[in-house]
Amino acid sequence: MEELNFIPNLASGPLDVYRNSASFNWKQLKLALEGDIELLRLKYKIWKTLEEDPLFAHHVVTPPVEELKRITQLQLKKINEYKFLTNAMFNASYGKRTRVIMTINEAVQSLNPSVSVKMAIGIYLFSNALLSLGTERHLKFYEATIKDRKILASFSLTEIAHGSDVRLMRTTATYDPRRKEFVIHTPDFEAAKCWVGNLGRTCTHTLLFAQLITPDGTNHGLHGFVVPIRDPATLETYPGLIVGDMGEKIGVNGIDNGFIMFNQYRIPRENLLNRTADVTEEGVYESSFSEPSRILGAALENLSAGRIGIMQESCHSISSAVAIAVRYAATRTQFGERDNEVPLIEYELHQWRLFGYVSAAVVFKLYIENFTRTYLSIVEKSNSGIRVDNLSEAVSEIHAMVSSSKPTLSWCVLEAAQQCREACGGHGYLKCANLGDIRSNHEPTVTYEGDNNVLSQQASNWLVRQYEAALSNRAVDSPLRTVHFLDHLPSIAKSTFSCTDTRQLKTPEFIISTYKWLLCWLLKYTYEKHEAEISSGRTKVQAKSKTQVYRAKTLTRVYGEYLALTFSLQSIEKKDSELQPVLYKLFCLYGLWSLDKHLVELYQGGFANKETAKLLRDAVLELCADLKGEIVSVVDALAPTDFVLNSALGKSDGKLYQNLQKAFFSHPGVFERARWWRDVVPSKL
Amino acid sequence: MEELNFIPNLASGPLDVYRNSASFNWKQLKLALEGDIELLRLKYKIWKTLEEDPLFAHHVVTPPVEELKRITQLQLKKINEYKFLTNAMFNASYGKRTRVIMTINEAVQSLNPSVSVKMAIGIYLFSNALLSLGTERHLKFYEATIKDRKILASFSLTEIAHGSDVRLMRTTATYDPRRKEFVIHTPDFEAAKCWVGNLGRTCTHTLLFAQLITPDGTNHGLHGFVVPIRDPATLETYPGLIVGDMGEKIGVNGIDNGFIMFNQYRIPRENLLNRTADVTEEGVYESSFSEPSRILGAALENLSAGRIGIMQESCHSISSAVAIAVRYAATRTQFGERDNEVPLIEYELHQWRLFGYVSAAVVFKLYIENFTRTYLSIVEKSNSGIRVDNLSEAVSEIHAMVSSSKPTLSWCVLEAAQQCREACGGHGYLKCANLGDIRSNHEPTVTYEGDNNVLSQQASNWLVRQYEAALSNRAVDSPLRTVHFLDHLPSIAKSTFSCTDTRQLKTPEFIISTYKWLLCWLLKYTYEKHEAEISSGRTKVQAKSKTQVYRAKTLTRVYGEYLALTFSLQSIEKKDSELQPVLYKLFCLYGLWSLDKHLVELYQGGFANKETAKLLRDAVLELCADLKGEIVSVVDALAPTDFVLNSALGKSDGKLYQNLQKAFFSHPGVFERARWWRDVVPSKL
Repeated sequence: MEELNFIPNLASGPLDVYRNSASFNWKQLKLALEGDIELLRLKYKIWKTLEEDPLFAHHVVTPPVEELKRITQLQLKKINEYKFLTNAMFNASYGKRTRVIMTINEAVQSLNPSVSVKMAIGIYLFSNALLSLGTERHLKFYEATIKDRKILASFSLTEIAHGSDVRLMRTTATYDPRRKEFVIHTPDFEAAKCWVGNLGRTCTHTLLFAQLITPDGTNHGLHGFVVPIRDPATLETYPGLIVGDMGEKIGVNGIDNGFIMFNQYRIPRENLLNRTADVTEEGVYESSFSEPSRILGAALENLSAGRIGIMQESCHSISSAVAIAVRYAATRTQFGERDNEVPLIEYELHQWRLFGYVSAAVVFKLYIENFTRTYLSIVEKSNSGIRVDNLSEAVSEIHAMVSSSKPTLSWCVLEAAQQCREACGGHGYLKCANLGDIRSNHEPTVTYEGDNNVLSQQASNWLVRQYEAALSNRAVDSPLRTVHFLDHLPSIAKSTFSCTDTRQLKTPEFIISTYKWLLCWLLKYTYEKHEAEISSGRTKVQAKSKTQVYRAKTLTRVYGEYLALTFSLQSIEKKDSELQPVLYKLFCLYGLWSLDKHLVELYQGGFANKETAKLLRDAVLELCADLKGEIVSVVDALAPTDFVLNSALGKSDGKLYQNLQKAFFSHPGVFERARWWRDVVPSKL
Repeated sequence: MEELNFIPNLASGPLDVYRNSASFNWKQLKLALEGDIELLRLKYKIWKTLEEDPLFAHHVVTPPVEELKRITQLQLKKINEYKFLTNAMFNASYGKRTRVIMTINEAVQSLNPSVSVKMAIGIYLFSNALLSLGTERHLKFYEATIKDRKILASFSLTEIAHGSDVRLMRTTATYDPRRKEFVIHTPDFEAAKCWVGNLGRTCTHTLLFAQLITPDGTNHGLHGFVVPIRDPATLETYPGLIVGDMGEKIGVNGIDNGFIMFNQYRIPRENLLNRTADVTEEGVYESSFSEPSRILGAALENLSAGRIGIMQESCHSISSAVAIAVRYAATRTQFGERDNEVPLIEYELHQWRLFGYVSAAVVFKLYIENFTRTYLSIVEKSNSGIRVDNLSEAVSEIHAMVSSSKPTLSWCVLEAAQQCREACGGHGYLKCANLGDIRSNHEPTVTYEGDNNVLSQQASNWLVRQYEAALSNRAVDSPLRTVHFLDHLPSIAKSTFSCTDTRQLKTPEFIISTYKWLLCWLLKYTYEKHEAEISSGRTKVQAKSKTQVYRAKTLTRVYGEYLALTFSLQSIEKKDSELQPVLYKLFCLYGLWSLDKHLVELYQGGFANKETAKLLRDAVLELCADLKGEIVSVVDALAPTDFVLNSALGKSDGKLYQNLQKAFFSHPGVFERARWWRDVVPSKL
């Protein structure tokens, strides 16, 4: 355990009574969840460095939004200076480098989500996009971004009137052969690019997606262009642009989301990102599909990397939320036998409200860690030109996985943050509890990088295609084996619930096999509805639209849960034997607690019998009771340091009321008379 | 319809296409939902007056929390000056006066929830408490509060370590016969009173609840005292008090929630509110139950009035949220057949996400309007000394009703606000959409005035008592007849689902009878579990605790929905025939959409058959499709004026992108270079 000495010990205090009953060492669990000791060490190094830097001190009162933007920009500069990404790391293999960048992102996000968004968009997404969409002539932008940090970029895709449906974007880039330039134009406000992070106040360049139009008037569809926005020396925007800040939002106000309208704005021909297609000096459009496998890999990365980052951040957010709520529950007493007050954590209702989310946090962390490794190894192979079997099928499967997991995780985390706030009662409503900010900052993840409901449809489309293959005895295209079980469709569909004791339910076998039945049934239910709608004369678009509620939408959610279960189970099987008992319990709780939400389908499809609901729910409550003695140490393993957690209710010393008192008393002006008293008590004349 | 001319007409525009398909006049529906034309007129008068007053102008950027407190206090003063509560109204009957006060509260809350909280606590709750808990000697406080508005009060009950369990409060008021004073003392920070609205910066007096201790050392339990806090002329707090502001919260930051510690602080003996008990000058405790019926009525009012106010405000919040989201859905197009884009409202998934909440808004409004009248008439009779049959039973039943309805409504509204935000996509995340503020300001209602989970238990306790009576053939104590159907327990319990067509489900009869079955089954399920726990040797406290999840908690929620259904149905039956078709559709949608969440119990208890889930869910989707042509006019009837709604996405003219453009362009400094640019672009030396 000496190797884990870089993790600070926890102060002894009121939480000891629950910590002492744990069956495992919390630091070891922490390492198991992180998956890599070097990455864990890096995280702690970043947290410690930033804790010691006054620029990263927490604000007792939320600063004005403009000030938040200033601080965020300064923090980004400072992080650049700290060079957490060493040259050695930068020059390591793609997979290793990316995991380091992801770890830095996660560590920074937990302190100020706006900084990590600013960094991810402004530096990493942009430079990756240059590599995958651009060619040699764009390397100067790449160097200026990732090495010199002179460029801070943004991504201009969404328009005011078009978000999810990118085909209908209306910003144009028309080639002018006379001056060898593209002329960018925004026809009206509806076509203004918007929600562009970093654009409102700070970026120097944007990666613009616009309809490419050649001199013959042909529209060649959306293409990427590097467009200068601001003079890096003065931060003045260039003439020909109307660039504005979108104003205050529900959260992440450190990010300057902007909108932009182009007025016949000219950029050099060379600023077209021309890996897949180019326009000659004369204005002829030429597409070049020279390296299809690399383009596929690049597409995969652009689509998925951002969403994987969101899921990693979501894991962090849910971990912080449950850590606060569980520590509060273990130290806050209320009611009891006569006047012997009892900690909230002893109440079955309170356990049930929280422990499901604790188990979700653990399962998600294991899943995403495992999935990220799988994902990176495929991208790495593809990038390096190593032949990957079924690469295009793997790309599709990964897209479906991400498109179901991002909704499943981000929604669950949003619910968790809310439940944790409520479980901390009124005190949870204080800013100093930090649950409000965790929630508000997490909230946009259900919308951005693909609205959850729209993404869900992409996942269900892929799933139904695999089902159709299985139905017609064709091979299922599942190189990652997430739906290879469809090969056994008939036998799975026939299975029914036959347990008579909760012990039989509290097993990975029961959970995984029930999920397989559920997926098969939902596929059938979705597919048959779709076919019926088509038969009744509806168009494909209409039929798809009539197949979402109760069907495709549920299917995607269930698939997301199934992925989290199967990938985390793989991980658990490889962990230390000391950790396995608690991990299996958490796994089973997450599985049964999630199945609880699909009981109707188990009944409707004829899988369940009259006893199923009661047995399943009894099992959930038994697991909650079983985990009571473990849960405080589990959240110790999930929680970041106290500085990062930043909650008066969730400090690891468990001194709830002393911490609350400190928070109250150190509030600026707490005991002052209102400075504006004269305004409300007019003097008598 | 001339009588409704005080309601401004709606501007013609993109929403016309959906408005023209409505089967009813939206102003008439608005009146039907409000229930009283004079109250509706008053609401519009208040909204118009405040719209014309620059002090009530909306803020494009959230002001700092301290400034929010200043503005809120100024707004309260201004509202006092407007005298919306005329002398005639003030001198009207109790019921009439109270409904006027409630209407003013609702109208003000919709503009700035902090002002209405400040007013409700600082003026009305305090003055009512003086009347019900105090005697003649406290009339001077009453006059100074409600007439002269010289006192601004607060309520000090909750302590840092004790919220829901009031018995264990530790602040003491010890009588000192020598100086004929009570000495108030706070033993430590855990016993500091907290969450006291108005205490942090502004109140002059507080109504303190403390353990009354006589010179012989006997503790007589919690009693109310009027305690001076600040000099009204200078707003300086008095020596002997540590009074602080609790700092920033998730929402309602215009309210100065405070905490207070008393250091041997002395108040006159007469400041004890002595209606039910007094301490003689010599220090002898004397209780006096002279007028039991009035005391009961008073108790009823103190317990329930605040919670009814919360439910009225909740109705307003959900109305605003769905109005914004539905108008957005009707004007925002996305995807479609080829390039013919389709408004979001045309998608079944989008209808399903929103229309259930629209139906909830309508059903809740009708329920609460009806219930408020019932409630006020009982209180009025009891106050005026008219004998009310079964008064104490009615008080218990009303407490159970409020204790289930406040959770059911406030949770549903919280979900609605969130779903509406998500349904507006990224644009819904903008402050100028107003969905974030609606949500954050609504959020504390699930915790304050009785935490929803704690209140739920009080409701289920009452329900189980009635069930026990029915089981043993005793009379059910239900003077308001909310559970009189328990007299027919055996026949209800035997009923099963026998529909074969969705038409049979879309009826009040099916919905109400299914709810009765559900309540009977949940009562049995809860009761039998409790008895089993007792038999196995658990204490009552333990048995109750083991009966909450899946049982008592669900029972309370179902009872709350049942109340909303039965009371709104009573109302609908009396409405104009022109309005009834749409009202019945909305009623059925709310009923079936809510039953959808209890399908597991319908299966588990043997009521449902394999087809039930599909039929019920098909019926929900049919109703959504059926309501598509009505829904825009329904939200017109629910929505306040555009000024009050304050949403760039939800304006009644439907000019979505023009309104959004105006919001963006009028943001202060929107196109300015960041004033702090020099901080992030250091000059080269």
